[in-house]
Amino acid sequence: MKFNLIAKDTCSKARAGEIITAHGKIQTPIFMPVGTAGSVKAVTQEQLEEDIHAQIILGNTYHLFLRPGTEVLEKAGGLHRFNGWHHPILTDSGGYQVLSLSGTRKIKEEGVTFQSHIDGSRHLFSPEKVMDIQRSIGADIIMAFDECTPYPCERRYARESMEMTHRWLDRCIKRLGETKSLYDHEQALFPIVQGSTFKDLRKQSSEVISSKGCDGNAIGGLSVGEPEELMYEITESVCHILPEDKPRYLMGVGTPWNILESISLGIDMFDCVMPTRNGRNGMLFTSKGVINIRNKKWAEDFSPIDKENPCFASRNYSKAYLRHLFVAKEILALQLASLHNLSFYLNLVKQAREHILQGDFMEWKKRIMRDMKERL
Amino acid sequence: MKFNLIAKDTCSKARAGEIITAHGKIQTPIFMPVGTAGSVKAVTQEQLEEDIHAQIILGNTYHLFLRPGTEVLEKAGGLHRFNGWHHPILTDSGGYQVLSLSGTRKIKEEGVTFQSHIDGSRHLFSPEKVMDIQRSIGADIIMAFDECTPYPCERRYARESMEMTHRWLDRCIKRLGETKSLYDHEQALFPIVQGSTFKDLRKQSSEVISSKGCDGNAIGGLSVGEPEELMYEITESVCHILPEDKPRYLMGVGTPWNILESISLGIDMFDCVMPTRNGRNGMLFTSKGVINIRNKKWAEDFSPIDKENPCFASRNYSKAYLRHLFVAKEILALQLASLHNLSFYLNLVKQAREHILQGDFMEWKKRIMRDMKERL
Repeated sequence: MKFNLIAKDTCSKARAGEIITAHGKIQTPIFMPVGTAGSVKAVTQEQLEEDIHAQIILGNTYHLFLRPGTEVLEKAGGLHRFNGWHHPILTDSGGYQVLSLSGTRKIKEEGVTFQSHIDGSRHLFSPEKVMDIQRSIGADIIMAFDECTPYPCERRYARESMEMTHRWLDRCIKRLGETKSLYDHEQALFPIVQGSTFKDLRKQSSEVISSKGCDGNAIGGLSVGEPEELMYEITESVCHILPEDKPRYLMGVGTPWNILESISLGIDMFDCVMPTRNGRNGMLFTSKGVINIRNKKWAEDFSPIDKENPCFASRNYSKAYLRHLFVAKEILALQLASLHNLSFYLNLVKQAREHILQGDFMEWKKRIMRDMKERL
Repeated sequence: MKFNLIAKDTCSKARAGEIITAHGKIQTPIFMPVGTAGSVKAVTQEQLEEDIHAQIILGNTYHLFLRPGTEVLEKAGGLHRFNGWHHPILTDSGGYQVLSLSGTRKIKEEGVTFQSHIDGSRHLFSPEKVMDIQRSIGADIIMAFDECTPYPCERRYARESMEMTHRWLDRCIKRLGETKSLYDHEQALFPIVQGSTFKDLRKQSSEVISSKGCDGNAIGGLSVGEPEELMYEITESVCHILPEDKPRYLMGVGTPWNILESISLGIDMFDCVMPTRNGRNGMLFTSKGVINIRNKKWAEDFSPIDKENPCFASRNYSKAYLRHLFVAKEILALQLASLHNLSFYLNLVKQAREHILQGDFMEWKKRIMRDMKERL
């Protein structure tokens, strides 16, 4: 994996770059649609490619391990072949999911024992096991196994957890060194900065993470309930330490405005279920503000969902029709809302990149921010 | 509306033709995907047009009347503008739905009073009312208001119901003559042959229906539980009477083999929820036979869903992946299965047409029938 830093904004820490993987280039800053179980919910791979212009999608190690399982994935020749997405894929480590989704779980130095949310079966995720699963999945970028602490979190717990995450990182690196990619392409490991909301811990974690010389670095444990301002402060201080010549990935963030702010702090990569999950609930992000499309006020609004947005659905279906689809519980409602929101996110980071290259990123950000946050 | 009869098969009653409407041509025989509430479930309008090559879709008067309602449809400029499908649309009369879906309902000479299955509100559908609603919807082909008798049905009930359906037809024709299309395009009325499974009643109804000189004619009240052979017998005898120079529409039919048999009896148009509804339940029609994709046997079958089928989904997603999507309850499962099945149906009638034109329809039908019915 290679990262080329192409331009730096002069008024902020924003950067434009490109990541080169075995499955193609990714232009940063980038948003990565979440395809939990190997499918970005309600969107086809063709729509992702041709209409949303996604460059990289996410898969979840926890979900893919449980279904379809590593045996099927290996026989298929990896996730790219299994789901037919031939561009870059990133898989998370499952650390977040074993803590948030599974039933009784126990965190030990060895790893996390947990029960499947599907059938209650018991499993152990250790750093080694998670590396092996990610070898079976075959994503281009794979994440180190970490513990994502909740918010709020006691200082002592945060410190001990962070230290264990660092020890787990060493085990991940060791295991990767002892194993090979199963499908003849390189897999880059991104370690994850933890430390909850404690600035000194975050600083310490950033330094440890940076010292490993990995191909990219991630910030975890944010956007878990803490105030936005605190998230920005921590992101800023962590970005200050993480190496400039490697991509920086802020995990699980966030709203469109969270993304723009974080780009200005030096983040290059984002993922979040918000555009798809909120879309399925009828919440649409548009250039003019946020819409609850189920609201009666849209029943006779025959204007396009968002004519400023490049995707076909946004321009060619009306608010009134989409509202009708939601009210009538039509599956097409979920499809169009997901297409629109994902396209909105992808277009946002694309524009951000253009404005970084043009040199007027902060001006542009200020200009669009107010409208975007409006509740329509 | 115009119907051009282009070719007649010499070994059967099969015909190839074209219907010309204000929203474009329809090549017959044709299958019409069902878009109950103005959306073919789980399929976008672009996919219908570009991938499935649908030429005409159905809307349901009953559903569209309840949601979004005629006021919204009129303000939108009709269903074509509301849902963005710019090709031909046919709407049924709601006769079938008021009987099958609504709660307490009462059939009288005036019409049918019924309760909405959504909110229990009371409404009256009369022939006049149903013509008015179909004016508001603005479909290219609209159906007369009829009573669809259940199977089995007593002779006396079938006769009286049929006679009332004939009187209702006269009222439909009168109402249409007194009103105008709301959107400056012609709307063609198709009357419906009834008479349950009584051949003399069916003969009588066919003669009455034919005598009205409408642009096309439909056969209702079949595929409601009667044996297949009986359905074919009645279809054959009715086709014998219905005018040759008008399209014949067999309502609500059916399996791929029902469609091929009925084409050989002289039917030109079909609709059925089977490809979409059964698709959503994991039942796939393929050139090699019928598949229950949820079955464990497909878990490691990485071959395309059906490589003989022209649609992108059928050729580019594997059986194993589609099975995984069903097991993981991913929305994409419903989308891909619907796309595949609809494409299978549309490709089937397209091929039927080609073989009618080529002169080897019956030979071809015999050849593919056995494989198609296989349970895989």
